[in-house]
Amino acid sequence: EFREEFLAIHPYDQAMFFIEQSKENRLRIYAYLSPEEIAEIMINIELEETKQYFIEMDPRFAAMVFSDMPADDSVDILNELNKEEVASFLTIMDKEAADEIKQLLHYEEKTAGSIMTTEYVAVFKAQTVEQAMRHLKKEAPNAETIYYLYVLNDVKRLVGVLSLRDLIVADENTRIEEIMSEKIVAVSVGKDQEEVAQMFRDYDFLALPVVDFQDHLLGIITVDDILDVMEEEASEDYSKLAAMSDTDRPNDTAFSSAKKRLPWLVILLFLGLFTASLIGQFESTLDQVAVLAIFIPLIGGMAGNSGTQALAVAIRGLATGEYEKLGKMKLIVREATTGLMIGTVCGIVIMLVIYFWKSDIYLGILVGVSIMASLTVATFAGSLVPMIMDRLKIDPAVASGPFITTINDIISILIYFGLATTFMAYLS
Amino acid sequence: EFREEFLAIHPYDQAMFFIEQSKENRLRIYAYLSPEEIAEIMINIELEETKQYFIEMDPRFAAMVFSDMPADDSVDILNELNKEEVASFLTIMDKEAADEIKQLLHYEEKTAGSIMTTEYVAVFKAQTVEQAMRHLKKEAPNAETIYYLYVLNDVKRLVGVLSLRDLIVADENTRIEEIMSEKIVAVSVGKDQEEVAQMFRDYDFLALPVVDFQDHLLGIITVDDILDVMEEEASEDYSKLAAMSDTDRPNDTAFSSAKKRLPWLVILLFLGLFTASLIGQFESTLDQVAVLAIFIPLIGGMAGNSGTQALAVAIRGLATGEYEKLGKMKLIVREATTGLMIGTVCGIVIMLVIYFWKSDIYLGILVGVSIMASLTVATFAGSLVPMIMDRLKIDPAVASGPFITTINDIISILIYFGLATTFMAYLS
Ligand SMILES: [Mg+2]
Ligand SMILES: [Mg+2]
Ligand SMILES: [Mg+2]
Ligand SMILES: [Mg+2]
Ligand SMILES: [Mg+2]
Ligand SMILES: [Mg+2]
Ligand SMILES: [Mg+2]
Ligand SMILES: [Mg+2]
Ligand SMILES: [Mg+2]
Ligand SMILES: [Mg+2]
Ligand SMILES: [Mg+2]
Ligand SMILES: [Mg+2]
Ligand SMILES: [Mg+2]
Repeated sequence: EFREEFLAIHPYDQAMFFIEQSKENRLRIYAYLSPEEIAEIMINIELEETKQYFIEMDPRFAAMVFSDMPADDSVDILNELNKEEVASFLTIMDKEAADEIKQLLHYEEKTAGSIMTTEYVAVFKAQTVEQAMRHLKKEAPNAETIYYLYVLNDVKRLVGVLSLRDLIVADENTRIEEIMSEKIVAVSVGKDQEEVAQMFRDYDFLALPVVDFQDHLLGIITVDDILDVMEEEASEDYSKLAAMSDTDRPNDTAFSSAKKRLPWLVILLFLGLFTASLIGQFESTLDQVAVLAIFIPLIGGMAGNSGTQALAVAIRGLATGEYEKLGKMKLIVREATTGLMIGTVCGIVIMLVIYFWKSDIYLGILVGVSIMASLTVATFAGSLVPMIMDRLKIDPAVASGPFITTINDIISILIYFGLATTFMAYLS
Repeated sequence: EFREEFLAIHPYDQAMFFIEQSKENRLRIYAYLSPEEIAEIMINIELEETKQYFIEMDPRFAAMVFSDMPADDSVDILNELNKEEVASFLTIMDKEAADEIKQLLHYEEKTAGSIMTTEYVAVFKAQTVEQAMRHLKKEAPNAETIYYLYVLNDVKRLVGVLSLRDLIVADENTRIEEIMSEKIVAVSVGKDQEEVAQMFRDYDFLALPVVDFQDHLLGIITVDDILDVMEEEASEDYSKLAAMSDTDRPNDTAFSSAKKRLPWLVILLFLGLFTASLIGQFESTLDQVAVLAIFIPLIGGMAGNSGTQALAVAIRGLATGEYEKLGKMKLIVREATTGLMIGTVCGIVIMLVIYFWKSDIYLGILVGVSIMASLTVATFAGSLVPMIMDRLKIDPAVASGPFITTINDIISILIYFGLATTFMAYLS
């Protein structure tokens, strides 16, 4: 009764129901369902939460669940456990599954190897369509995708690809090598997952083969896992733009989320102190014309804003590879010009406003020119900093908005107080 | 010779070669290749750039290319052209293709309807596996995916789904309704594309059927197009966080990119003027203790930074729907607590630094307490603002980092100068 109804809904919905149950109910669910059915549920739960469920299961049952899951998903969960737990699960598990998992466990995080699975369908180029079809039907229940067949030569190098579409429209007696495509697009096992995702976007594949440097087929990456990679990478870039090394998990405590945010904040605090000591250098100017203080946040803030915009444009362009093609120099020149335009418009606006508000044309000119110069330099800096990072092989996405804002605070203060001190005679 | 070699590479690579050619060479390529081969190239080029190529082709040739492309891709390109151009292409085109395209042209941007295609394989539930297989083989060359078959009843409502996997392992004489799955996950035609992408992530489908409110099948959405949607949505959110309505295109001119950035900057400029006039209110305080000016950017800047972090967390959480589940109140409380922790740490650090640097304990306490209070309020505000926007049905992603930074400038100035004015007696 419960079993039947529960299994009638989609595994994702089963998972959503499952995670809302009490521990007691969950233990009951483990008893009602087979390891294979539990495996289906587990692959639909967020990674960080899955761990606890395997710990509360009977270890032998848990090991069976692990061996019934796609190997890549087992590996992802096992990577969340400690070494002893992993070792004991691998010992209990059936040998075939354990071997497959062990192979995958040692690939570095965020590389093609870490997101691939070994459950693909491979055929030999000398086989016929009929033989391949028979092989495919046999492998189907365990394969991650049956929509591509990878064709190997006799030393197991990848020499061709065949879609199921090609296979089902082909004549039974044709040999695979006659219908396979030799336009193989493969990724090497150490490639960054972000670049792999870009390849999926470019080539519209449902799966891509992963090879070593000698073209031996090591595994495949499927598009469903790429959707998760894209989400993960987008979140990462988004968080970095806001100066966080890591986004909060929804059920993080205040303490753990404070811990994630403080490192950047403390660095920015010291940069801010540097800004303060810089203004300190101009104390005599400030003493004479106290009204200057009023515009400090405005000038620094606007420089920060335009710098953040330029930064975001540059980081996106670098991430999508669009600026590689166009030439980075061209972007930097364009940003400098954009900065000058933005600065001129904002500078004129502020000059007029201050003139009418304070009836002080010299103050208006001072603030207007400072805004113009600050915005030009800030926009330029906002695009230059990520370009330099990229050149130094640092992920440009670590250049955050707050970081650029603080740098631009310093630049704009130097410009503002530099000008004010020089033209002091004109200020009341 | 050229033809053969060119066609041997993947269509994406053909496209990359094509876009680098001169107009002369491109005209030559149109002459060498068939409309179908050109269609393959066109679907691999960025939308914004494709337009020009169709304009330079002979219109009758262009119309043939349009009818050889997947309908959804034709529609995307036609949407970039003006009405007269669209009308004339539709008139020249063969009627069947034109009808399909007309159907799709009127769906609103960024809805499920706008990203779906009508080239799916549908079977009736009363058919046998053999009949379905025959139908599938016939439709295969024109279908966007043959890996799912959609099962209709006699009034053409969607009643089941079948994967090609299920079909090939089934016995030839079985009726479709016996093996089809009735666990249908479908999207309604007006659904936002971002939510559709989320469904693909959750359910791991390669395609999803699109239905009207009576469950009539209108089209399908395929995962390759979802990868593009995810990229587009991520770019959009990223740009908004940096206060841009729209990211620059790589070959935008400085003028058009300045035009995109100025609207937000001008709004922020006036907010900044408000900040300036606020500090103006405390001019007599500043006159008496000029050293106060030194810490304005530091306090405002730190408030902006922690507000931006809180903002990013809230927007991500809202976008992924994670906070819907957990309750928004809980997040706001957590953010307030996080803010207090962050504020306390930064406040103590700054107090000590100022004490040792300026040997002025009262100034240290003033700045320390201001930082503590500002960061607490700023973090709270950073999470509250997007929540309120979400409640008011405004996309919370329009709350940008620079906007929050400026709001927090105002808050922190009120706190800092308010405290300074109150405890003036203790400041030298
Ligand atoms: Mg993995
Ligand atoms: Mg990365
Ligand atoms: Mg694509
Ligand atoms: Mg997988
Ligand atoms: Mg997966
Ligand atoms: Mg990245
Ligand atoms: Mg088609
Ligand atoms: Mg469209
Ligand atoms: Mg949207
Ligand atoms: Mg998924
Ligand atoms: Mg499509
Ligand atoms: Mg497409
Ligand atoms: Mg969005």
